[in-house]
Amino acid sequence: MLEHGGRLQRAAREYGIPRERWLDLSTGISPFGWPVPPLSTEAWRRLPEDDDGLVEVARDYYGACHVLPVAGSQAAIQALPRLRRPSRVGVLAPGYAEHAQAWERAGHAVQRLPIDALRATADTLDVVVLIHPNNPGGERFDRAELLALHASLSARGGWLVLDEAFMDVTPEHSLCDVADRDGLIVLRSVGKFFGLAGARAGFVCAAPALLDALHEQLGPWTLSGPTRQVLREALADRAWQAWARTHLREQGERLARLLVTRGLPPAGGCALFQWCRCDVASVLHAALARRGVLVRLFDTPFSLRFGLPGDEAAFERLDRALDEALHEVRR
Amino acid sequence: MLEHGGRLQRAAREYGIPRERWLDLSTGISPFGWPVPPLSTEAWRRLPEDDDGLVEVARDYYGACHVLPVAGSQAAIQALPRLRRPSRVGVLAPGYAEHAQAWERAGHAVQRLPIDALRATADTLDVVVLIHPNNPGGERFDRAELLALHASLSARGGWLVLDEAFMDVTPEHSLCDVADRDGLIVLRSVGKFFGLAGARAGFVCAAPALLDALHEQLGPWTLSGPTRQVLREALADRAWQAWARTHLREQGERLARLLVTRGLPPAGGCALFQWCRCDVASVLHAALARRGVLVRLFDTPFSLRFGLPGDEAAFERLDRALDEALHEVRR
Repeated sequence: MLEHGGRLQRAAREYGIPRERWLDLSTGISPFGWPVPPLSTEAWRRLPEDDDGLVEVARDYYGACHVLPVAGSQAAIQALPRLRRPSRVGVLAPGYAEHAQAWERAGHAVQRLPIDALRATADTLDVVVLIHPNNPGGERFDRAELLALHASLSARGGWLVLDEAFMDVTPEHSLCDVADRDGLIVLRSVGKFFGLAGARAGFVCAAPALLDALHEQLGPWTLSGPTRQVLREALADRAWQAWARTHLREQGERLARLLVTRGLPPAGGCALFQWCRCDVASVLHAALARRGVLVRLFDTPFSLRFGLPGDEAAFERLDRALDEALHEVRR
Repeated sequence: MLEHGGRLQRAAREYGIPRERWLDLSTGISPFGWPVPPLSTEAWRRLPEDDDGLVEVARDYYGACHVLPVAGSQAAIQALPRLRRPSRVGVLAPGYAEHAQAWERAGHAVQRLPIDALRATADTLDVVVLIHPNNPGGERFDRAELLALHASLSARGGWLVLDEAFMDVTPEHSLCDVADRDGLIVLRSVGKFFGLAGARAGFVCAAPALLDALHEQLGPWTLSGPTRQVLREALADRAWQAWARTHLREQGERLARLLVTRGLPPAGGCALFQWCRCDVASVLHAALARRGVLVRLFDTPFSLRFGLPGDEAAFERLDRALDEALHEVRR
């Protein structure tokens, strides 16, 4: 299994700084999450029911004809490869590593390709997996290009899988509205934009036959009752969503400006994170960690991903830590 | 997929009685569930972490050396058959139907057998699946018999799978304490005894290599953050557990006495439900439903399962409804 989470716990041990004193910018989860109200006891007591209204609310929110709730995109990422015979699969790289691993584990022939190579070899592939916008690079794709790629894949029984985990701030770029086409599969997550990573919930938008097969594969009751209750309210809360989109965009731009000012202009990103290539990424990561600021380190290519600071004090703390750390690194 | 849940919703439509006016005795979930306190927002916000202390608390509660938290026994029931090459599998029947279906779906040769036939053919099987105590019949097995069966199966690379979803009231009969033996796999659920069916959580007790393979199959973050928080507290709450065991035993006996008095002596059961064979089960089920009392109907053999009424008024309502319904049926 790939390593996940527990980074804050480990950093706390490694740098001898108690957990609660860190500024954790190592994720792409919004620090301005949907405010969860107290829950009904009923949600804990009873088995969750499929006809509780969640699917209807999700269809509206995603603008998709057909949706299947799943226990996080991760559940779909693991199950989708089991629904195809051995295929030639191209996965955008670097990107969220679980995709390629899940397809490999299910016995497919997987190529991890940068976007240009992926475009060039698409004709020889049965399945193309794109993260859109990409994580950590933030690459985006043209709607027309994606539709053409899908048409070419589906004409020969192939799939285009789009992981739109970071799409909620820019829903106008989503392909959920056409995900009822055979061979187009869009994954959405409530972890990032809604700040509900602990809820373990996401949705798959696709044609009904694919969703039925996926449902059969995943089994009944994949979401907890409290999660279903929270989602029914969060996905319907249009006023909060509009506020969050504007606020995240502003805060994302503010983070990008801060990084530019400190001499680390982002090479990419989206509202929820900024990504900076940097030859001394590893040393800088450690220098920030010694100051209790945790960011995410990547090594191919050497780079750092900065999640959003959640308030004024957090922005100031990042700015100061970055100033000191860069001085130390460049000394 | 087998049909599950939504029975109350359907009964409400079919009998024209609003949902909130039913006495729902159609499940084996305790009506005296663990009292869930308000949750920290943090549990919703962050990705759940494996090293949050849940595993240690669960080891203590189950008295097992090694445990894996899973999204309900159901998740384990679906994943276990994928960890073996095609095998000859015997499943106790009648019993919880998902077991046999999951083994069949994964390509195994499945026989559904009553206990005597299962005993007689165990030598020809690679895997034996028992629900202990059984649902709905409440059959129990001798520890010595189970250990002998396991020894014989494991000696030839086989498995004994014990679904102990209803074992919490009688932990002295559990085999969790020896589940570190190769080929012994015990499934536990927090849905019934703790009244947390909405949490979608259970535990598998088995040898470390099996648990590693299962973890790999199920992937990361299978439990939500709020569920992990609730379980850490509920599994450690020894005072509540002791109270619940005593109370459930008393209420189970009270339910059995009520059924005897009304001329429906239980053929089996456990503290959380009583099971009555009855030639007119189907008609009686409908007569109770017309009175807003929902019980679970089985047709092989014709029988009804009664869950526990949750208070004095519920006991009285069941008693009255049963009296009227039996008069109607026997007229």
